Amino acid sequence: MVRHAPIVASVPHLLHGGDYNPDQWRATKDATWKEDMRLARLAGINTLSVGIFSWAALEPEEGRYEFGWLDEVLDLMAENGITAVLATPTGARPGWMSRAYPEVLRVNRDRTRNLHGGRHNHCLSSPVYREKTTAINTALAERYGDHPALGVWHLSNEYGGECHCDLCQERFREHLKGRFASLAELNEAWWTAFWAKTYADWSHIESPSEHWRGEQDIHGLNLEWMRFTTEQFVDFYLHESAPLKALTPDVPRTTNLMGTYPGIDYFRLAQVLDVVSWDSYPEWTGTEKDAERGARASFLHDLTRSLKSRPFMLMESSPSATNWRPVAKLHRPSVHLLQSLQAVAHGSDTVQYFQFRKGRGGSEKFHGAVVDHEGTEHTRVFKDVAEVGERLAALDGVVGTDTPADVAVVYDWHLRWALDDVKGMLQGATGYEATVIEHYRAFWEQGVATDVIDSSLIAEPGRLDRYKILVAPMLYMLRPGAAEAIDAFVQRGGTFVATYATGYVDEHDRTFLGGFPGPLRPTLGVWAEEIDALYPDDRNAIDWDGTAYEARELCELIHAETAETLGTYGADFYAGRPALTVNRRGDGSAYFIAARTGADFLADFYARLVADTGAERALDADLPPGVTAQVRTDGTTDYVFALNFNPTAARIDHPGGVLDLAPFGTAVIERPRT
Amino acid sequence: MVRHAPIVASVPHLLHGGDYNPDQWRATKDATWKEDMRLARLAGINTLSVGIFSWAALEPEEGRYEFGWLDEVLDLMAENGITAVLATPTGARPGWMSRAYPEVLRVNRDRTRNLHGGRHNHCLSSPVYREKTTAINTALAERYGDHPALGVWHLSNEYGGECHCDLCQERFREHLKGRFASLAELNEAWWTAFWAKTYADWSHIESPSEHWRGEQDIHGLNLEWMRFTTEQFVDFYLHESAPLKALTPDVPRTTNLMGTYPGIDYFRLAQVLDVVSWDSYPEWTGTEKDAERGARASFLHDLTRSLKSRPFMLMESSPSATNWRPVAKLHRPSVHLLQSLQAVAHGSDTVQYFQFRKGRGGSEKFHGAVVDHEGTEHTRVFKDVAEVGERLAALDGVVGTDTPADVAVVYDWHLRWALDDVKGMLQGATGYEATVIEHYRAFWEQGVATDVIDSSLIAEPGRLDRYKILVAPMLYMLRPGAAEAIDAFVQRGGTFVATYATGYVDEHDRTFLGGFPGPLRPTLGVWAEEIDALYPDDRNAIDWDGTAYEARELCELIHAETAETLGTYGADFYAGRPALTVNRRGDGSAYFIAARTGADFLADFYARLVADTGAERALDADLPPGVTAQVRTDGTTDYVFALNFNPTAARIDHPGGVLDLAPFGTAVIERPRT
Amino acid sequence: MVRHAPIVASVPHLLHGGDYNPDQWRATKDATWKEDMRLARLAGINTLSVGIFSWAALEPEEGRYEFGWLDEVLDLMAENGITAVLATPTGARPGWMSRAYPEVLRVNRDRTRNLHGGRHNHCLSSPVYREKTTAINTALAERYGDHPALGVWHLSNEYGGECHCDLCQERFREHLKGRFASLAELNEAWWTAFWAKTYADWSHIESPSEHWRGEQDIHGLNLEWMRFTTEQFVDFYLHESAPLKALTPDVPRTTNLMGTYPGIDYFRLAQVLDVVSWDSYPEWTGTEKDAERGARASFLHDLTRSLKSRPFMLMESSPSATNWRPVAKLHRPSVHLLQSLQAVAHGSDTVQYFQFRKGRGGSEKFHGAVVDHEGTEHTRVFKDVAEVGERLAALDGVVGTDTPADVAVVYDWHLRWALDDVKGMLQGATGYEATVIEHYRAFWEQGVATDVIDSSLIAEPGRLDRYKILVAPMLYMLRPGAAEAIDAFVQRGGTFVATYATGYVDEHDRTFLGGFPGPLRPTLGVWAEEIDALYPDDRNAIDWDGTAYEARELCELIHAETAETLGTYGADFYAGRPALTVNRRGDGSAYFIAARTGADFLADFYARLVADTGAERALDADLPPGVTAQVRTDGTTDYVFALNFNPTAARIDHPGGVLDLAPFGTAVIERPRT
Ligand SMILES: [Zn+2]
Ligand SMILES: [Zn+2]
Ligand SMILES: [Zn+2]
Repeated sequence: MVRHAPIVASVPHLLHGGDYNPDQWRATKDATWKEDMRLARLAGINTLSVGIFSWAALEPEEGRYEFGWLDEVLDLMAENGITAVLATPTGARPGWMSRAYPEVLRVNRDRTRNLHGGRHNHCLSSPVYREKTTAINTALAERYGDHPALGVWHLSNEYGGECHCDLCQERFREHLKGRFASLAELNEAWWTAFWAKTYADWSHIESPSEHWRGEQDIHGLNLEWMRFTTEQFVDFYLHESAPLKALTPDVPRTTNLMGTYPGIDYFRLAQVLDVVSWDSYPEWTGTEKDAERGARASFLHDLTRSLKSRPFMLMESSPSATNWRPVAKLHRPSVHLLQSLQAVAHGSDTVQYFQFRKGRGGSEKFHGAVVDHEGTEHTRVFKDVAEVGERLAALDGVVGTDTPADVAVVYDWHLRWALDDVKGMLQGATGYEATVIEHYRAFWEQGVATDVIDSSLIAEPGRLDRYKILVAPMLYMLRPGAAEAIDAFVQRGGTFVATYATGYVDEHDRTFLGGFPGPLRPTLGVWAEEIDALYPDDRNAIDWDGTAYEARELCELIHAETAETLGTYGADFYAGRPALTVNRRGDGSAYFIAARTGADFLADFYARLVADTGAERALDADLPPGVTAQVRTDGTTDYVFALNFNPTAARIDHPGGVLDLAPFGTAVIERPRT
Repeated sequence: MVRHAPIVASVPHLLHGGDYNPDQWRATKDATWKEDMRLARLAGINTLSVGIFSWAALEPEEGRYEFGWLDEVLDLMAENGITAVLATPTGARPGWMSRAYPEVLRVNRDRTRNLHGGRHNHCLSSPVYREKTTAINTALAERYGDHPALGVWHLSNEYGGECHCDLCQERFREHLKGRFASLAELNEAWWTAFWAKTYADWSHIESPSEHWRGEQDIHGLNLEWMRFTTEQFVDFYLHESAPLKALTPDVPRTTNLMGTYPGIDYFRLAQVLDVVSWDSYPEWTGTEKDAERGARASFLHDLTRSLKSRPFMLMESSPSATNWRPVAKLHRPSVHLLQSLQAVAHGSDTVQYFQFRKGRGGSEKFHGAVVDHEGTEHTRVFKDVAEVGERLAALDGVVGTDTPADVAVVYDWHLRWALDDVKGMLQGATGYEATVIEHYRAFWEQGVATDVIDSSLIAEPGRLDRYKILVAPMLYMLRPGAAEAIDAFVQRGGTFVATYATGYVDEHDRTFLGGFPGPLRPTLGVWAEEIDALYPDDRNAIDWDGTAYEARELCELIHAETAETLGTYGADFYAGRPALTVNRRGDGSAYFIAARTGADFLADFYARLVADTGAERALDADLPPGVTAQVRTDGTTDYVFALNFNPTAARIDHPGGVLDLAPFGTAVIERPRT
Repeated sequence: MVRHAPIVASVPHLLHGGDYNPDQWRATKDATWKEDMRLARLAGINTLSVGIFSWAALEPEEGRYEFGWLDEVLDLMAENGITAVLATPTGARPGWMSRAYPEVLRVNRDRTRNLHGGRHNHCLSSPVYREKTTAINTALAERYGDHPALGVWHLSNEYGGECHCDLCQERFREHLKGRFASLAELNEAWWTAFWAKTYADWSHIESPSEHWRGEQDIHGLNLEWMRFTTEQFVDFYLHESAPLKALTPDVPRTTNLMGTYPGIDYFRLAQVLDVVSWDSYPEWTGTEKDAERGARASFLHDLTRSLKSRPFMLMESSPSATNWRPVAKLHRPSVHLLQSLQAVAHGSDTVQYFQFRKGRGGSEKFHGAVVDHEGTEHTRVFKDVAEVGERLAALDGVVGTDTPADVAVVYDWHLRWALDDVKGMLQGATGYEATVIEHYRAFWEQGVATDVIDSSLIAEPGRLDRYKILVAPMLYMLRPGAAEAIDAFVQRGGTFVATYATGYVDEHDRTFLGGFPGPLRPTLGVWAEEIDALYPDDRNAIDWDGTAYEARELCELIHAETAETLGTYGADFYAGRPALTVNRRGDGSAYFIAARTGADFLADFYARLVADTGAERALDADLPPGVTAQVRTDGTTDYVFALNFNPTAARIDHPGGVLDLAPFGTAVIERPRT
């Protein structure tokens, strides 16, 4: 157990603030900027993120920089004790660049080149774009590297998308040459002998396109394209990071992630970040549905924290409505505080918003903000924010604390890419992410802390040693080393849980031969002969321990080999065949759940496993549904966050006393760590 | 109260007829054309529209005209006493023009140029297209300007769509220079500082494109593009109108509109028309749903009439099935007469059809027509048409009469463009048009005549003086002068009704600062702090006058400032807060309805207002549901049209007697105007 | 009654086997190929299809052939007594060809050219593609023409799609010049006078495009484009067939069809095939829905057989899940045998699969196969296949037997093209194919054998003489000669059944004048004045013989002229008007059903007709629902196949005894033909 350093060394507090766009208010800056400072302080804000999307303001014409306005803003912030999260402006280009250098515009899967517009719409391979990026980032670092307000570098914004231009095609081929020793190896790995797809020359390889328009049937190609796209972002991050690193080596750098955004493997990208940050926009409804939304948001926080196993930044969240949702619902009373403390509970050392002051025009003009168009501190939302500021100010002890977990749940981008692309079972609707979260939620409802890791971490030497339970729902793809590490984990005494659709393909999305679950067949002691797909209204059952639990969607027909059968199917032509098994192996146990189940089964099953393994619960109590408890600790003091995601009150009766939580209510308890 | 001149000076009757395409029947013209005249007369038809889409027949090769067939047709019509609505043929080009001059083909939002095909598929900026238009229109006007059959010029057909070619881009930039004094002013109005969108040069501005493909996030740009598109049609109309005006100054010119077609601001286009005409295709079901369909059709008639505040032409309607609907239902008995008299009741001086004789091929070959493929007068549809002919012939007194209204409902294209584009609330699903019609219907069910006006008319000096009640549902955008005119209207004693989502943005779709409803805050006496969006199944309530009326979709959280609270919310965290208010101001009253309600609330609420203000009802009676009554008058005689949109009989008990209406039945009562 | 020769002269057995892709397993060929032979023999397999999609393996670089691996495979097959269905590889091109000759890539309706990728993605007009095809096919025929394994040529694979490149445009215009004597004739046939579409020059004609993008409103053009596309495939088939025919005149040639795939008129394509083959993938659910699925699969088998009136090949079917379905369900026990015997029952002399060994990569890697990734004979699926092998081996007597039918149901591609394109009634949702199958099913449930023919066969001299009953649901289009042949059939004593939507258009999709059903008006003795379209939930009724049968979707308002009224409408404004009529004409009867009905009406109505006409039933018994019986005969012996498509047992009590069928059970009875 360690206490990590604060993200900004000079600010030993939880950071509170958000995106701030003073460049939109230059016409009234004398009045507005000063008022902004007053309002920020009133709201307990100690950080503001500036410069995101400011390229046109900073470089209005090619090569002519205008830093005056930003000088003024940063000075004002420093005067008011507000730390700057200073952004590089590469999230959106000025129009002059697209005009002068059309190569910076992205090319789509259908090979049409975009027009200027939107944002995040540039080719990462473009030499011009990279050169312009270096120039502006260098200028920023030179000018503000020593500014007292500077706290964190915020590189670009929400990296995403992909480009299929000729420059990117060429880089893709280079990437492939690094991955495969020869074209023959690539052809074999991608199984191109089907449908006459064998490549006769590296130059024949093109990125995936759309159905009918071009190639999309080579799953190995599709998968490798996603890896390449991830590497493009890693490479571009390092590129734009270079001048910052050189000039301000002590200022931490980040880019804001987006949960399980499918376009980039964040486990890979996180390797090059100094600190991880992300943008969280749960869809709160104000109803009993928020328990599920809460579990999902917690999962995403835990995933983000697990990327680097240390405190992260909640870079963006909405203090009110999220404007881009089809139904832009207001936050109910208490919800803003709840979502803010939830982030901290799961490892965030910041609570930040998009945005501080609501803009007057453009597509985000109705997104929730600390200061509304109305302009005063007299709104409900402003008061909610100020309340959060007050609560965070009282939690300095939490800064840098750790979040120990006895359980790890596996979520893997490469696996997801392959499953999203699968032709078979339920095609694109296999529900991978939702299934992982359902398993996660069974621990969350017990107040059991959980890491979220991927195959690359599974295979990391020693990594699994810290866990008692490893849960890998739908572990469809086994990347190199994963099966071996899991087997060793079991043999050493770990408890492993796998499900249907495990061990089907290798890292190239090529099926294993010799019977599924492939390399995990000895570990799990089962052979999965076939998998049945059910229509949406169809139901089967798993009979376990006297109860018939509902099964649906996917039911695997397995043979227990060395495994013991715990539960069986209740219906259809495979009634009575094994549906739940355990394989005792070495000092550990490997469970296999053969079908998709409901939350009831998962709750009962994992409660049993938590009891059996002694995995730690935040509170020694059965939590009411929709309530979780999470711990942060420095090894000496525990900060227990109790969070109620129900629109009704909830009571926790634990050894330390009775805890009454209001609807959407929260409590933080300090206690000595035992 | 005035009696307007007949549309065709020499024909003091209601016009009855429709689109006629003799050019499709040239192969059998000796038999068919003569038979057409016999059948037309048999059906009581006194007008036929010819030449729509005849360009290929009139100019089969570039520069070679063939007028012989049209000479013959017009002579036949004159001989048979049938007035010609003569069309310019610009609704569709001959193929030779697209081949020789590809510039005439439209360019889409994705910047691809169309192929030849369809119709209405030409660039209005194209010099070639304009030159060809001038030539053919001049030739038509020269040849037929003195023809005895000529009654009305019908320019092109159902203007619509847009073009994004380079020529149009250039014209768009010119349009913008006329709208903004400087690029800086444009940048400020469009709030381009967000997402680095600031324009450094006029030439960088491009028309909106599609999501991801190009620009679509600058709402001011999107809005101005729609204004430009409207001006393109105005300009093109004037262009193709010029030779007609020069050669036949006394022949009225029109182009046929399409109700609330969103692509053109008809209030603007109507300014340049001599007479307004439109194409009405209600979807009748033959069930109790037709009450709602009837209200909607009436709204569209009233809107069309209000464009110029004088009688209009029903240029197209179907005497039977509308072929392009997914379910092309037959008209039930009586429905054809009902929809025809409905148009006249609301101010039409014509009942015209698409089409007279059903074509044998192409995509409209199954659209309802007076004469079917079968070819005789022995069809049900033909008899329905002949009945209408007979009824119209007895209503000469109605020609040119006025339609006085004490109530105006606001429907505004600019506002709609902005609301359709809004990111927030319920995004594209805010239901603006449907909401306006729901408010309209509450008056329609009472037999209260209603104008439909937009912000430009609100701001027109003196315009509001004629109304007792002004209703502006979701007045999201306040264009210059509107708020001032409304406030003056109230101060002078008017009754104004506004709702949630009022006064959010200015004419550039840029939010007002200082609290919504912006400039109307003093008029309405409320501050709208926040707006809650509800999921489709969610419900709240407005408690008013002892009843809990359902509220849904959008609930605004308002503060009554100078206003008095009449009703309050019934549920959720804002239960008890104001939901219905009135602000007594000057001699008038300004009501505010904070949430979307059902028809029950609107019926009760507006019945109260009609009683309070003494707004005129067509009949001094409570009308049964689904029945309306509308008046046309020359100031001396009232023509009261009673219309039953129910599949069941209805009875009206009014001071003049008892009126029994058959299912879908109609009655016209003459009475002295008091 | 004849016995046809076996498809492969030297193999007087039912063929059993499937697609085999040894080229995907060259890396492990020594082990895998030998094991394949062992497993094939174990499963009772006597044929394998090789070389489909092998172009890249056979010609890895332009002009360099590699036949060694195929030599080896064919030798192995010959050694093991396995007949080869040897494919030409034109279903997919190697990548080098697309690179070197982009003209081979298809152009879409939007006129964009595809990238390399997918399969079936080539221009049939391309001279380069045709030249390459000739070269490889010649090389194959030269090398393997005398190979003892060679049994059947399999040309390409599942022909489909279309190309809009300039070469194809030019060929299309040539096709049109062959169809129309002059441009004037084409303009009149296509009714181009509407919307100014008259063509001034052949060169102005372009293929149909998409809505708004280009032309799609000229229905005659759309229709002729489909005819052209069919002729493109006929022509290409003959082109690639030429070297095979020249070098191996005795080896039968086929290409695998796809049931009612809408893109090609299979009645036309079948004319140039030596033997018809098709790929059948019914969606079995394991529930009572399978009765309907079974009827549909039978219909498709009967259609395929009727194309040439002789035994066909079931070229592909799945022994397990069909991977590309949204829900890839496993076959329930017995279902694999059921679907295999079903094919034979309806005239197939083969049972073949896609595929023998499941591939490891690419988009078909989870499609059902005889040998799974697991690799042994110990799977359920392998055992199912082996069981089929055993059963087929016992049915040598069935080879070449005939399938006599007293009933013909009409299914017509040209008609379907027009109905799918119709604007009116229910637009694209008129349900033509489903309706035809509903009528077909009424006979299938009675065990009455049925041919499926189109208008071209109706008009074939003497063709109708073999039938007692001719059923033509929705005979919207009457191609030349069809009405005359039908009338003669009736006059000679036949029983003809027509429905609503009959006789609307001629072969150019141009309506008949003078009253529908056009040329069949005297035959049917009715005039169809109007057709009412119903909303999905609306219902009417046909009152016939004391029962009110449900009517829905489309209700035609007819006048009985010479016909006698048997049933009338039960509701709406046309209650009491004729809904079912019969016209006694010459020695026969022509029935008219005016509305779409449910299966109940069709069952009762056609039972009456079968009884009246004495049409032959396979068993003299009332079959339980979901059970059919079908006969194959050599004139001396009948092979009666009883097939139970229910998940429950069924009993047939017939004069020969009681037959008990297990769930999804089957039985084959031999009996002397009487
Ligand atoms: Zn690129
Ligand atoms: Zn243009
Ligand atoms: Zn082509």
